[in-house]
Parts: sequence; C-alpha cells; structure tokens
Amino acid sequence: MAFTDLSIAKDAKIMPIQVIGNQAGIPEDALELYGKYKAKINVDLLPPAEKLGKVVLVTAISPTPAGEGKSTVTVGLADAFKQLNESVIVALREPSLGPVMGVKGGATGGGFAQVLPMEDINLHFTGDIHAITSANNALAAFIDNQLHQGNPLNLDPRRITWKRALDMNDRALRQVTIGLGGPAQGIPRQDGFDITVASEIMAVLCLASSLEDLKERLAQMVIGYTYDKEPVLVRDLGVEGALALLLKDAFKPNLVQTIEGTPAIIHGGPFANIAHGCNSLMATNTARQLADIVVTEAGFGADLGAEKFMHIKSRKGGFNPDAVVIVATVRALKMHGGIAKTILNEANSDAVGRGMVNLAKHVDTIRQFGIEPVVALNRFITDTPEEIAEIMDWAKAEGVAIALTNVWEQGGKGGLELAKLVKEELERPTNFAFLYEETDSVEEKLRAIVQKVYGGADVLLSDQAQKQLANIKKYGWDELPICMAKTQYSLSDQPKLLGRPEGFTITIREIMPKLGAGFLVCLTGDIMTMPGLPKQPAALKMDVGADGEAIGLF
Amino acid sequence: MAFTDLSIAKDAKIMPIQVIGNQAGIPEDALELYGKYKAKINVDLLPPAEKLGKVVLVTAISPTPAGEGKSTVTVGLADAFKQLNESVIVALREPSLGPVMGVKGGATGGGFAQVLPMEDINLHFTGDIHAITSANNALAAFIDNQLHQGNPLNLDPRRITWKRALDMNDRALRQVTIGLGGPAQGIPRQDGFDITVASEIMAVLCLASSLEDLKERLAQMVIGYTYDKEPVLVRDLGVEGALALLLKDAFKPNLVQTIEGTPAIIHGGPFANIAHGCNSLMATNTARQLADIVVTEAGFGADLGAEKFMHIKSRKGGFNPDAVVIVATVRALKMHGGIAKTILNEANSDAVGRGMVNLAKHVDTIRQFGIEPVVALNRFITDTPEEIAEIMDWAKAEGVAIALTNVWEQGGKGGLELAKLVKEELERPTNFAFLYEETDSVEEKLRAIVQKVYGGADVLLSDQAQKQLANIKKYGWDELPICMAKTQYSLSDQPKLLGRPEGFTITIREIMPKLGAGFLVCLTGDIMTMPGLPKQPAALKMDVGADGEAIGLF
Repeated sequence: MAFTDLSIAKDAKIMPIQVIGNQAGIPEDALELYGKYKAKINVDLLPPAEKLGKVVLVTAISPTPAGEGKSTVTVGLADAFKQLNESVIVALREPSLGPVMGVKGGATGGGFAQVLPMEDINLHFTGDIHAITSANNALAAFIDNQLHQGNPLNLDPRRITWKRALDMNDRALRQVTIGLGGPAQGIPRQDGFDITVASEIMAVLCLASSLEDLKERLAQMVIGYTYDKEPVLVRDLGVEGALALLLKDAFKPNLVQTIEGTPAIIHGGPFANIAHGCNSLMATNTARQLADIVVTEAGFGADLGAEKFMHIKSRKGGFNPDAVVIVATVRALKMHGGIAKTILNEANSDAVGRGMVNLAKHVDTIRQFGIEPVVALNRFITDTPEEIAEIMDWAKAEGVAIALTNVWEQGGKGGLELAKLVKEELERPTNFAFLYEETDSVEEKLRAIVQKVYGGADVLLSDQAQKQLANIKKYGWDELPICMAKTQYSLSDQPKLLGRPEGFTITIREIMPKLGAGFLVCLTGDIMTMPGLPKQPAALKMDVGADGEAIGLF
Repeated sequence: MAFTDLSIAKDAKIMPIQVIGNQAGIPEDALELYGKYKAKINVDLLPPAEKLGKVVLVTAISPTPAGEGKSTVTVGLADAFKQLNESVIVALREPSLGPVMGVKGGATGGGFAQVLPMEDINLHFTGDIHAITSANNALAAFIDNQLHQGNPLNLDPRRITWKRALDMNDRALRQVTIGLGGPAQGIPRQDGFDITVASEIMAVLCLASSLEDLKERLAQMVIGYTYDKEPVLVRDLGVEGALALLLKDAFKPNLVQTIEGTPAIIHGGPFANIAHGCNSLMATNTARQLADIVVTEAGFGADLGAEKFMHIKSRKGGFNPDAVVIVATVRALKMHGGIAKTILNEANSDAVGRGMVNLAKHVDTIRQFGIEPVVALNRFITDTPEEIAEIMDWAKAEGVAIALTNVWEQGGKGGLELAKLVKEELERPTNFAFLYEETDSVEEKLRAIVQKVYGGADVLLSDQAQKQLANIKKYGWDELPICMAKTQYSLSDQPKLLGRPEGFTITIREIMPKLGAGFLVCLTGDIMTMPGLPKQPAALKMDVGADGEAIGLF
C-alpha cells in the first residue's frame, strides 16, 4: 500500500477545533486554543450534564510484536458510532515522545482511523508531558537541594526513592551517579531516570478529580526515607503548591478530532506496567459529561490494562465500563499459537486455533467482572478466510459476540458491525463487580489478580517484597489497590510463555507505595521504566520541510 | 508598596491576542493561538514590509545584586513610544523556568512595565524551551545509543562534548556518571547537565534565519571527537532532521502584550555568558517587519550583552542598532562606588560619584561602535535629589543624553522623556562599525574585546586554550566571532572588581567551538552553566488556587 499514516493524515480534511468543540457541545469560551486544531478544555465552563455518557472500554489480547491495532480500533469504533448518528467522543492517551523518536514513529491510531493533527499529537502536543517532566525534575532538584543545604529533613541519600525523568528513550540514564565534583556540587548519590510517562506525577495527573485533589495527591507522594527509616513526603518539603502550579494547564483535557471529525479527548498517558495505563479521569469524566457514548482504551492486554482500568481508574472515578471490546488479530493469535513473527504471512489455521486460548482467557476475565465482552477481529490484508473462520466458529460455539473490523482501510465504515454489537451490550445492564476490595489484605488482592485475571496458581513474595509489605502495613498504606507491573507479552511473568499458560506462580519482586497515585506498584520480573533506542532509531527518517511540513512520522 | 508584580499583572486589563495582532498588522490567519492571550506568529503569512523598523537596544551598566530593572525599562520605553503614537514592538527573551523556581519568581519586567500574561510567560509559555530541552536530550540519547550499538562513528566516550540539559536549577546534575549497571545499560562515561538556556541549541534557534538555516546549523554542531581526535558533528549522526522537526514550532516567534497593550514578541532566551544573551533573530526580524521601532534588550551589562549583540547577532542579521539605551540606577552605581548592598538605602552622593566610572566606560564602549547612547536613570524610591544630581551633572559635563525613568510605578508615562531622547537619536544617522572583523585572528579578536570593550590591558591564553586554538585553526574554524563567557559583575574577569578596573589581563581558560551557533565560546574564570537553588527556593511560596489562579510568582 502506498499510503502511510502520515500521508493519510496530511490528505485528511481537518476542521477548525471550534467546529469540533461546537459539535461536542463545548461553549467556545471553554476552549483554550493551541493553534487551529488543538484546544484545552476549561471544564469549569462546561454546561452541567443531564446524564453521564456510557463508557466503552477497548482492550486486547496479550500483545505481540505483530501488533493488534487497539488504538486504531478505538478510533474507528468511535467513528462508526458517529456514522450511526450517536453522540460519541473518543478518549485516548497522549503518545510519549521517547518511543516516537525510537521505534514507533507515531502513536495516534492508523490509516483512516487516526486522530489529527497527528504530527502535533506525536511531538509536543499541548506540552502536558513536558509539564510533568518539569514538575518531576523540579521535585528532584528540591530534594537534592535540601540534602545540600544541611538536610533539615534528615533524608537518607541512600533511601531516596524519587527518580528523575525525561520523555526520551535513553538507556544510559537508567543508572547514574549525581552530585559529583566536590562540596559546591551537591551530595553524591546513586540516582536514575525513568521515562516521564512512568513518573508517579503522570499517574497522579491521570487519577486526580480536581486541582485540589491533584495538589493533595502531589503532597502525598513518598520521596524517600530518613536515616530512621521514616517516610518523607512531598508535603514535608512543602513544594506541592509549586508542583501543582507547574501542572495547572497540563491538568486540562485536550480536544482534537479524528479523520472523520469525531471529537477526541487526548489526555494523560501513564505507562501500563509501572502505572495504570489509561487516559486521565478528567478526560473520561469530561467526555461522559459531553457525549452519550465514550470510547476509551487501556494499555496492553486485558490482564494489565483492563484489570487496572476496573480496579484503579473506575474505582476512583465511581463508574464502570458499560461495554468492553477485546481486540484480536489473526496474526497475533498465530503468534500465541507458537508461530514466529517471520512467517506470519503464511496461512496457518491450526496456529490460529492453538492461539485462541489467549483470547478465550481474556473473554473469561471480562466476564468475571460481570460484563459480556465483544471481540473485534481487526483484519489484516494477509488474513485468509479459513483463519478467520477458525475464530468465528470458536466465537459462535462459546456464545461470544464478535465483529470483523477493517478501520485502518475504511475508517468508521469498517467498524459499523462492531459498533452495532457494542450498542446492544450498552443497552443491556451490566452486573459489574470488582474482583477484590481495597480492604482485602495485600496478599488477597494479589491472589485475586493472579488467579482470576492471569489464570495462575499462586503468588509468591520475595524477601524484599515481604519486608516492604511489613513497612506498608506499619504505615497503614495497605488499603490501596494493586498496580501490577508485569510483562505484557504473557499472562504469566515470563515474557516467552504465550498463549494461555497455567499452573504458574507469579513472584512479586518489589512493592512500591505510590501514595499520590493511590496504589501499590507490585513489580514482577524486570520491568523497564526507561526504554532504550534501537540500532536505527525512527528519528533517522524524520525531517521537516522548508514550509514546516513534518516528514517521517508514520 | 502593597503592589507586587503578580498583583499588578492580575489587575491589568488584558486584550485578546487577536486585537494585539491586528494592531501590529498581523493577519489573523498568521496567528496560531495558545490560549486567549498568546500566539505564535506564522511569519510566512506576514505581508511584505515596505521598510524595516529601527532597532533600539537596551543595555546596562555592569549588573549588581541591587538590580537595574533593564527589562522593566525596555518594556516601559516601548510603552512610552506607544503613548507617543509611534508604531512600536518590544522584543524580549523568554524566561527560563529554573531561575523562576529558584530565585527570581518571575522575569517579565516589573510593576506597570510588564508583559502579560506573566504567569504563563514565566511558566511553560508556548513550550519553546521544553522543545529545546527535548531536542538537546534526544541528541544526547542518539549519541549514547551509537556508542552502545557498536560505535560506528568511533566516538571517544572521553571526548564527548555534548551535554544533557534541563530547564531547572539543579546543581547535583552538574557532574554525573551515566551508563552504569552493566552491558544492557549503555557505555559508562562522565557527563553533565547544563540549564537548557545554556544549550547550543538555544543559541542556534536564536541565530537561525530560516528553518533551513536552523537545520544546517544543527547539522554543524560538534558533539565530540573520535579516538583519532577528529571532530564528530550532528551531521555524522544524521539526526539534524529529527532535531529540526522537534524545533519547528519553537522556531516561530511568540506574540504577547505589555500591560499598556503594546505588542511584545518574546522568543528565545540564550544565556548571556556561554551564549550571546538576546532574543531570537526571528523575533527581531519579525518585529522590524511589523513596526517602525523595535525596542529590544541584551543580557547583563554592555560589555557582555551589547558587545555580543553587535558582533554576533547584528552581524548575522545584517543590521545594527539605531540607538542604544544604557540603564543605570543610583543604587547600582553606589555599589560600583564601593558600598555594600546592606547599606544601599543610606544616601551617599560620594559613592555615586565614585561609581560613575562604570557607567562612563559603558558609554565609551557604545560610542566606539559609532552610536551615541542615551542613559536611562531608572528611579528607585530611596534615591535622593543629591544622588541624582551627581549623575545628571556628570552627563551634562560629558555631553551624554540622559533621562530619568520611573516605569515600574508609572508604566509608559514614566519613560516618555527617555523615549523622546531616543527618538532624537533614531533620527540621526549612526556611524556603526564593528570593533573586530571575523577574518581577524582569534588573538586579535580577543584583544579587541578586552582592550576596547573591557578597558583591560591584554589577554592571555591558558595552555589548554592554546592547544584548543591550534585545533580550531587546524579545522578552519577560526573565522568565527567570539562569544566571551565572563563574569557579568566586573569589566574584568574578577567578579569583585567593580567600578572601572584598569590594567588587568583577561585569561582565557578554554575555547569551545560552537559551529552551529557560529561562534567560539571563550571561557574566563568559572562560568556556571547549571545554577543551583538557594536554601529557600522561590517555589516554596508558589501555589495554585482552586480556580487555577497562580500564586507566588512575583
């Protein structure tokens, strides 16, 4: 195909953002323009909603390098609802610049199911992630400054847990020593940089319900421990006001549009491992205030993204999804069936059949939450009728609603069948239930996730995690939901165990209290919080024309 | 006075930026709005200018901790021209967030001579500095990635000159080691962070005349040397296109307004030591295209800021200032006369008389450039008539045009007399001449600056600087102008030598080729390129109200 995402985006007819805002019922005064096609929404100026919109959560099977096109389906589904004359808004995460420069080139859907202006959204957008980087590193500078200025808080430099952050793929910054060079240059200590989207501040921004809540959450973040092992919070430094000030504009949701002119609110983009992996509560709430149907997505597969959407975001937001879409592809199911990426283009119905177990597990999981999922089988040009039939037959036998989608090529039209099935689910009441309560013990919460969501046998805590859990209990932080940091590739904690592994035990290596975000991060295996660049970064193909035209975002 | 800069700014009547744009003759289509009161200017859509506006450069005596109010006078002078019905635009630098959070609290003029919206300009503004941080650190990540991926460029990790950057005051990042943690985490090496405004990319952005020139300058930046001591440029990495793409919006000048509704273009903010210290050439050119008079400023005293404005910016831009204002205050002259900051409030005409030598030297310097300067004596409430008379008498005797200004309290009205004197100079032809030519030898160029501008006896090169100069000659980089990195407090390289020292020798410690910026940075003494935070950072007083109102910027 001669089309690229960028060429399609450039040929698309984009409307002034006021037109989109007007269509979404946003008074012009509530729009703060960023150029002609982006705006921040001043939510204080929105009219009160008569009723709140229903939420469609788009999740997926366990991701593979074959790609599932979850964002593309999310956008295409919203466009399909628009074609059906529904009042709809799509709510998405903001792309991180690091992966864009590194491997992705762009992250705003694909083909004819994209959000615009894709160059802007993929580059600096409205500066939200930069504001988070600033706040994160201002806090780090305040911490090291107080160490340098006599350390009145008695902070143990070996026990500082707050790391610096950059919105960059930069492996050389994972482990650093800082404060070198003598008495005028601070206190030497070990430190490290995370990618900004892994910063707790990103999670805080995404879970706060108001500016006041934002400030309170910032104040509550743990930055380290004293020599007496007592926790030190941002509140103790007294800089939560300055951090909130740095974030005051970033906290406002951003309005853009899809290629088909559907309003899109793109706001916040926390990692789906170290954090909860979905767009901001502000964005979802704003979208629900404005539209009857809100289509949104969660990161990675349903074991990570959807589980956290339910247990963390929905719980904080006081709502639950009214329908869930699970995106699958023939290609990815073949990989779950044991086929290597290099021969995915060869027809192999048997492999599809073997890989179906992964989809089946995610369907089960969503059903456990009391929601009947709809499967979106996202078509690729190499799919054969036999391979597709393999999946369709399975769905029929299992009583699972399933629709073929072809939104990359056709936009909303390629998602009409899916939209109709989802609409049926939206009209049916759900029977939503959490799989654990916040008041359960940490061990019980972990077991619920591992057994019910991952399909594993049990959970083990490392010595370090046990010690950390004892402290967490001591400080009374144990009544928080769990945020699992696990490989996205497998239901287990072993990235190579594809399909539907069984009988496995998950080992919790570390438990990190994130009091600002309001969850306990439980690390399994090695979780990368600062990606690296590949040998040939996507950036090598990027350029800008003399007229300011973006080149090489794809 | 119960007024603060922030309270005055908040009470000011601010106009929609389209009104300001319209007043400046900018077609509405050429404005890319960032909220209601800020816009980027798409210069490709501006009408061609019949003639270019004249440039008024505002500089100062050697700065002291007493403060001269140079930005405030710059804004007030522009407002005064507006009151005189002149077509005028003020062109200023963007404040760096680091000092705002650290010591300054704000940097947008003061009192009734401010630019608005001051909170936005002092915080993230339109994201320009964040874009520069991103480009700077993307480049650093590409460098370390190529080291990690087999080092095809044969780059010597000990000879990498490109540093990372953050827009933060963070002394603990001045000297760091990176790439620790084993083979998967990059190549260990020494590194350091500069504040973003000290990044060569800031200087490049400020001196580029077009997007193509920007890309060419980025390609030309030296990042380090091979094991064979051959220079390695960004061009060799092949990422100049990606860097230019990251900077494409930051390269567009920003339009805001003064409290009195004068159009203000605020764009770029390079350090005045390690770089040339004035707003972008794009901003000045755009302002000249739109207005008859452009009032702009250069960093620090005339020995640093004005000298570089003439030799670097004007030379690249093909224009010269048509008038120069030197800002002085009674308080600062008293410090140059040997009085400590703590007793500045006590009247002391003798000290003023002794300190006059500093002003006299800067007047001489500007005259050497063939321009007759106008002195702005910026009033403070503690100034006595006797102290003021001391200065007025001197000016009369020396034939120096001088005006009292009181713009902090009165806005443009307090600068009317100054504006009238400047107008007289604008109507007189200048006899502008550079004090050195680019084709002079580096030693001759240095001697010209030291002897003619600083009033020193001679210049010495350290062994290291001599070795570096030999290489600079070898690579043919010696026909670039000089960018002196010297203390701003003294005409000499000794910060404590106030007034008008004589007979001193300046020692050049290091010469750093900045081929992208297009100058040779000559370091004298210890130049700080990453500031630290004070014991009580300004951030401690900052906050945001529930309605999003900024608190504690002053």
